Amino acid sequence: MKIYFAASVRGGRDDWASYLEIVRQLGDYGQVLTEHVGNAELSASGEGLDDRFIHDRDLGWLKESDCLVAEVTTPSLGVGYEIGKATEWGKPVLCLYRPAEGRALSAMISGSNAVTLKEYQSPKELTEIFEQFLQSK
Amino acid sequence: MKIYFAASVRGGRDDWASYLEIVRQLGDYGQVLTEHVGNAELSASGEGLDDRFIHDRDLGWLKESDCLVAEVTTPSLGVGYEIGKATEWGKPVLCLYRPAEGRALSAMISGSNAVTLKEYQSPKELTEIFEQFLQSK
Repeated sequence: MKIYFAASVRGGRDDWASYLEIVRQLGDYGQVLTEHVGNAELSASGEGLDDRFIHDRDLGWLKESDCLVAEVTTPSLGVGYEIGKATEWGKPVLCLYRPAEGRALSAMISGSNAVTLKEYQSPKELTEIFEQFLQSK
Repeated sequence: MKIYFAASVRGGRDDWASYLEIVRQLGDYGQVLTEHVGNAELSASGEGLDDRFIHDRDLGWLKESDCLVAEVTTPSLGVGYEIGKATEWGKPVLCLYRPAEGRALSAMISGSNAVTLKEYQSPKELTEIFEQFLQSK
């Protein structure tokens, strides 16, 4: 199985520890095409590659993937854009969200019936969520 | 002309003064379907409506619009999602961005050839940008 993992890069890297753990766990189910998104050394300034190259490479990967797993705690234009494309293309989409005081998830994500939305706080919860979502794919 | 204006709501309302001015200027070209997004009284907690209702209403408006104008300075999942949909549906998309120190726009936006990206700092620049983009639509 090819899994596209989407998470904030230039929108902010506050949740990088979650991203790292998600990529680690997803590796048990298949190939994570965007493994670098979980890299602790990737900063909010990005990969240092040409933007057109990044856009076309990432959409190519998304197109060939079997599903999209998106961490949506930190607001991100790129993650939203990829969820918009994936839902148009009929890909299964799992969104992971860590609720906290003073934070509210976009209605475009929580209100979409093409998205499976799961809230979590700990890595243990992720294990169960992936088990449920990815075993059925 | 029906114009869909997209800007951050739950991602943060730091740029609300820009949104207000954009909605005001867009009104000279046609009907702004999402006028409430420029409302200074709309907070990051959102409209207080059901998320499924907001999602379906907004996508319905986006579908019937002639173009999408998106303010992309504050990262937002919803704005990214709408840009993803609009580019899939072949709608003309104008993205407005105010560059600043320590901020970097998503490569999914700056690297997309389906998006017209314009940087601005003042309302005066917006006038020229709209003149150019909307007169041709």
